[in-house]
Formats: sequence, C-alpha cells, structure tokens
Amino acid sequence: MNRVEDYADIVGYQTIEDIFKRSRRLVGKSAVHINSTFIGGGVAEILRSLAPLMNSCGLEADWRVLHGYPDFFTITKKFHNALQGEEINFSEIKQQIYHEVSEEFASYAKLDYDCIIIHDPQPLPLVKYMRKRQPWVWRCHVDLSSPNALVWDYLKRMVIKYDLMVVSHEDYLQTDFPLGQRVVHPAIDPLRPKNIDLPDEAIRQTLEKAGVPVDKPLITQISRFDKWKDPEGVVDVFDLVRARVDCRLVMMGGMAADDPEGAKIYDNIRERHAALIERGDLILIVTENDILANALQRMARVVIQKSLREGFCLAVTEALWKGTPVVASRIGGIPLQVQDGVNGYLLDPRDNAGFAERITALLGDDKLRARMGEQGRETVRKKFLITRLLADWLDIVTLLTDDYHH
Amino acid sequence: MNRVEDYADIVGYQTIEDIFKRSRRLVGKSAVHINSTFIGGGVAEILRSLAPLMNSCGLEADWRVLHGYPDFFTITKKFHNALQGEEINFSEIKQQIYHEVSEEFASYAKLDYDCIIIHDPQPLPLVKYMRKRQPWVWRCHVDLSSPNALVWDYLKRMVIKYDLMVVSHEDYLQTDFPLGQRVVHPAIDPLRPKNIDLPDEAIRQTLEKAGVPVDKPLITQISRFDKWKDPEGVVDVFDLVRARVDCRLVMMGGMAADDPEGAKIYDNIRERHAALIERGDLILIVTENDILANALQRMARVVIQKSLREGFCLAVTEALWKGTPVVASRIGGIPLQVQDGVNGYLLDPRDNAGFAERITALLGDDKLRARMGEQGRETVRKKFLITRLLADWLDIVTLLTDDYHH
Repeated sequence: MNRVEDYADIVGYQTIEDIFKRSRRLVGKSAVHINSTFIGGGVAEILRSLAPLMNSCGLEADWRVLHGYPDFFTITKKFHNALQGEEINFSEIKQQIYHEVSEEFASYAKLDYDCIIIHDPQPLPLVKYMRKRQPWVWRCHVDLSSPNALVWDYLKRMVIKYDLMVVSHEDYLQTDFPLGQRVVHPAIDPLRPKNIDLPDEAIRQTLEKAGVPVDKPLITQISRFDKWKDPEGVVDVFDLVRARVDCRLVMMGGMAADDPEGAKIYDNIRERHAALIERGDLILIVTENDILANALQRMARVVIQKSLREGFCLAVTEALWKGTPVVASRIGGIPLQVQDGVNGYLLDPRDNAGFAERITALLGDDKLRARMGEQGRETVRKKFLITRLLADWLDIVTLLTDDYHH
Repeated sequence: MNRVEDYADIVGYQTIEDIFKRSRRLVGKSAVHINSTFIGGGVAEILRSLAPLMNSCGLEADWRVLHGYPDFFTITKKFHNALQGEEINFSEIKQQIYHEVSEEFASYAKLDYDCIIIHDPQPLPLVKYMRKRQPWVWRCHVDLSSPNALVWDYLKRMVIKYDLMVVSHEDYLQTDFPLGQRVVHPAIDPLRPKNIDLPDEAIRQTLEKAGVPVDKPLITQISRFDKWKDPEGVVDVFDLVRARVDCRLVMMGGMAADDPEGAKIYDNIRERHAALIERGDLILIVTENDILANALQRMARVVIQKSLREGFCLAVTEALWKGTPVVASRIGGIPLQVQDGVNGYLLDPRDNAGFAERITALLGDDKLRARMGEQGRETVRKKFLITRLLADWLDIVTLLTDDYHH
C-alpha cells in the first residue's frame, strides 16, 4: 500500500511537501468517494489509489460503491451514452430503476462525512434521498460537450442540489448552468502494477506467458471493448498498416461490471476477424491483468487509441508514461495529453488512412519513437500523476468544507 | 423498498410484532454487514433485503462490500473450495494477496458501528487491520463439515479474534474450537422479484420472451455454473428421464463477480451438449434475470438440485416456496429443507438412476406434485423467510452489544 512520500523519487520532494501543507488544513475532516464499481474502468482504478493516499496524508477519506445490479447498469450505460450525445428511449421504467437503486442504498448507507463526492451519473440521485448535511460534489468523468438534451435536462434537476461540479475538460463546462464548475484532469498512479517500471526480462516473460509472441513489431490498443473505443476501426487501420509492414495487433480490454455491452462487442470482433486471429496476427485479450497491460504498453512500438468519444482517456496517459508514442483521435481529453508531432500524433477518428500512415512511419523509425516516448513520459510526469490529482482533491475538500459552515 | 410490516400478509401480524419488540432493545445501535460482492450469489441477495429491513425496524444497519479484484477472487474461490474439502496449493503469494485487500480496505473504510458482521472468508482478515472497538461476528455460509485442515488452521487464527461464529447447519459447528458458535439458517425474501407471486399470464410471457417453449414438461436447475452444483450430472440425469418422458431441461445460472470459475464451466457444457441445445431440449441461460428465474421455478414440474456441496442452498428454498417439488442431493443444508417423500425427494448425489426415477414419477403425477408443492411452501413459510432471519440477527446484535460494554 503506497503512501504520499513513496512518490518522492518520481515527482520530487517539493511536490510531496506541497501535498502535506495542503493536508494540514484538513485535520479532523472526512470525505467519501462514491462510484458504482470497484472492478474495471478508470474511475475504480483512480479511487483504489486515491482513497488510501488521501488517508495517508491525514484526511479521513472513505470509498463506497453503490450496489447496482445488471438491469440498473444497462440503464445507466444508456444514460452515459446519451450524455455523450446518443439518442435514448427515455422511459418511465428506466427512470424508476435508476432512482430505486439510490433510494435503497440511502436507506442503509451511513454517510457521516464532511464532504461527499459522487462519481458519474450512477449514484447521482443519492442527493435526493439523503438529508444533505455537508457539501456534495458531482465528479463527472463523461464527455459533456454535446449531451442529449433530454437526459441532461433530467439530470440537471439533481446536479443543481450539488455544491460543485467537476469535469475533465474545459469543453465540458456547462455555460447555461449556474452551478459552480471546475476542471480537474484525471491521473494515473505510477506505483500501481499497471504502471510500475518493469525490467525487460519481466516484460518478455509476461508476454510469453500470455501467448503474445514478440517476433514481429507490436501495435496495441488497451481499452474496454466499447463502441466508443471503435475496436472495429482499429482492426481496419491494422489491415492498412499490415499491407506495408509485417506486424501484430493486440487488443486488450477488461469487462467493467457496470458496462453490460462489452461481451457482445468482443464476440462480434472475434467472429468477424476469425481468420486474422487464427493466423496469430490479431490477439484479443479479455483477462483483467495489470502487469500484462503494462508489459504490452511497454513492448508495443506504437499504442493506438482510436476512440470516438473519451471523457479523458487514461489508456493514453498510461501509454505515454511508458515512453511509447501514441497515435490517437483528436477528441475528448486526448489532445490534453497527446501533442501532435511531439509525443505522438492526433488524427480525425474516421481518418483510417491517416492513422495507418502515422503508425507505419513510427514502426520504421527507432529514433523518432525514442524521442517521442521521452516527451510522453515528461508530459505525464508534469501533469497527469496521482499526486497532482490528490492535491486537487485536497483543495476542493478544503474549499467546500471551509465554505459550508461559515 | 420493503418494510417489515409489508410481510404481515405472508407471515402474520404476530411475527411482525415480535420483530418490533426485539428491535426496541436496539434503539441507537448500529451494525454493518461486510461481504465481497453486491451482484450474484445468495449472500448478496440476502443482504440486499436484510440491510433495508434492519433499518426499517429502527437499527442503523449498513452494508459494505470489500473491494476485491479478479486475482483476489480467484484465490478466495480456492479458499472456499478448500473449506469444502478440496486440496489447495497454499502459496505465500495467495496469502499475501488475500491479506492485502483487507489491509487496503481497512486503510480507508470508516467502520464506526456497534457490531461488525463479516460474511464468508473474503473479508475475514479485516479484523487484523482495524482497531477492534466492538463485537465482530464471522458469518460463514460455506459447508464447514470437513474443511481442508491447512486452510482452516490458517483461518482459525483470524476467526478466534471474533466474538461469535455463525454457520448454516449444526454439522458445520467446530467442536475443537473454543469460539462461541451459533446456527442460523439463511432465508429468502418473498417480496423480491425473484420470489413474488406471478400470475400465469406473466409466467407465460416471461418464458416466451426468454425463448423457453412450454410445449413439453419443464425440469429446471437454477444455480450458478459451478462444479459443486454438478451441472454435468444434471444433464446425465436428464438424458435418463428423456428416454422415458419427452421433456425439456432449462439450466439457468448467473455469474457472481466473486466466482471466476463460472464462465469456463458454462462453456464446457455448451460445447459438450451442442446437439441437445441445437434440438432445443437443453436450454442454458446466463442472464441475471430474477423474474425469469421466478417464472421458471413456477412453470417447472420438477426442480432438480444435484449439488455435491451446499452450505444451505437457497435455490431449493426458492423452488419450495413456489410450490414446486424438489428432487435434490442429501447433502449440506438441503435435508433441512427437503423432507424425503413430503415436499420432494432426497438422493445420494451420485445416484443418477435414482434422480431420474423420482423425476420421471413426479412428471407423470399431477396430484403428487400438487400435494408436495403445498407442503414445500409451508416448510418455507414456517422456517426460511427473511422475517425469521431478521429476528435472528436482531437477537445476535442485541446479545453481543449488551455483552460488550458491561
């Protein structure tokens, strides 16, 4: 279990001292993060690191998970998609199930904390069913740049009860909405198995054990099997690259308990590209295995991220941190991380030919990859590590709790 | 959301009054249940009902879920199997991961309650990592009649820190262990979608929508795809029955998030019995759908439960409650519920011929099924409904908290 001071070698002692200074204002205060899954997905990963770290600098910070069930997750995934702009059949029964889960949770969950931080739409209605005795923050990880109006209007009536809304990108701020809003970029934990440094020997062994040969250059996309990650498009790009350079594509994605669409999308790809898989040129991995993800991102010559929508995209952060150039869509939070031509390339998500061209060029240029990789690692070190996120949360909790009782 | 008084029509007002009397001694007290999943499996189902009900009679009763991850669940499933008598490769690294999850959870989980109730082995080590300020109960749902000595010796060192151990059957009491122990039978909630009364029309529509034809007599086993439920044996029995009566077998089982073996077992059955599935005589269902499970148990002429090990077996309770005779293995908690020749039949789990004979006889005898079905429903009403379980927990919390500070 990591403590704040364990990050000193990576971020420097000044950063650690700044965090401890911030935390002194929070002695005796408590906060709780509430989200809807503890397995799979970026939010669970962040909280798994953030909750112990917040405690290690003095704040009492709990992490609770709403108790959903499959029908509920099917509905909230549709809300999620609608917030990212999709159409939705917004029925009574969907709204009812959505509220029931929060109502039931509120009937027993003891939320005696000085600040309550709700992640994403799933536990959003909780604020309706608890007596509000403290500041509530709605931390939305979704791309809110062009939400479905029907769903956003519906959610606004709950969001307005909150004291602050936190989003991942300036473009997601809601200009026609009077609630206080703030941009906080997500971050990765460099000391977790998914991101720790791995010796070459460990990388090779891990890949061998997982059945990933390294006789050809590797390209990889590590992202849930989700239509927003355009897994079909990734295979199309790979086909174009493969016509010029013999290489291999590995797509790895866990199944988040709160995302019921994953299995179907995975099955479709497996069926449609059976020949490619049979030949060993396309490898699909669904095991949740952080060390393997880490090894793949390090061994890959290029990481591709061909998403159509991304709140922020921690998969890109992870790849950059490992010194691997990223060729990615110019959407959502990706341009906050990838600087075109500096630590990777940005493209229109539909520009398959462009993706293929950039990837092909990178595969053949060791020096370019090394230079971009170094830049990528520096980008993450400066802006997207968990210590920066921790500091942001300490500030938010201080601000809101100071404000509340005065 | 159900309240204690909503059960009056089913259990009578005397039972409700008894519960409220018990709860008066608990005003101002709090308790928390901690288990390791909120989706799938009997424990999550019980807690989903029990937590709100405990609150509805005045006790502050919370429900928290430990934050495990796939590797952790793989290990704890092995511990579970070992407690039920299997061999295990009991490595250092398994023990380390087992403890780490509790240690991390303890670093942030605020457990300010007057009584802490830990379910099953997954969160058992928590007691090591929290300052113990209140009584702790270890509620073990596993068959402990002949545990693997290595694992049980290892767990005992943690269990001994608890104030009480609760098991599901007299046979699971540990005679060579000085800790106070108590038998509490699990129970089902008659007002949950899985168990509520369904009109015939709703049953038919539900089955039709799920692709289950009702032109032939149905046999069903509704249980996770788990080797302890002997799904292969169920198909073998079905083959014997089918040789005499044209009928259909439906096997339905969700995937619990904390049971990683399920998918493999399901795939094996699907492959091995492809022909039977193709013909429509064997239907496998993995969707988590409570109403469908309910409808199947009601429409089935016979419910089979061919388990090799069962802590208690709520699937049997559910079937009996629906007035369907149960032909089941004479193991674990099943003989507490099924009385041979009264509300079903008990057989040696390996006696396929015996299973087939009993099922065949029942399929052809409407009167026998009706009589047994009525007896089954009465058995459950008297002994295995959630109101009785609620009363048991109120007593335990009263006993322990009264005892603790005097």
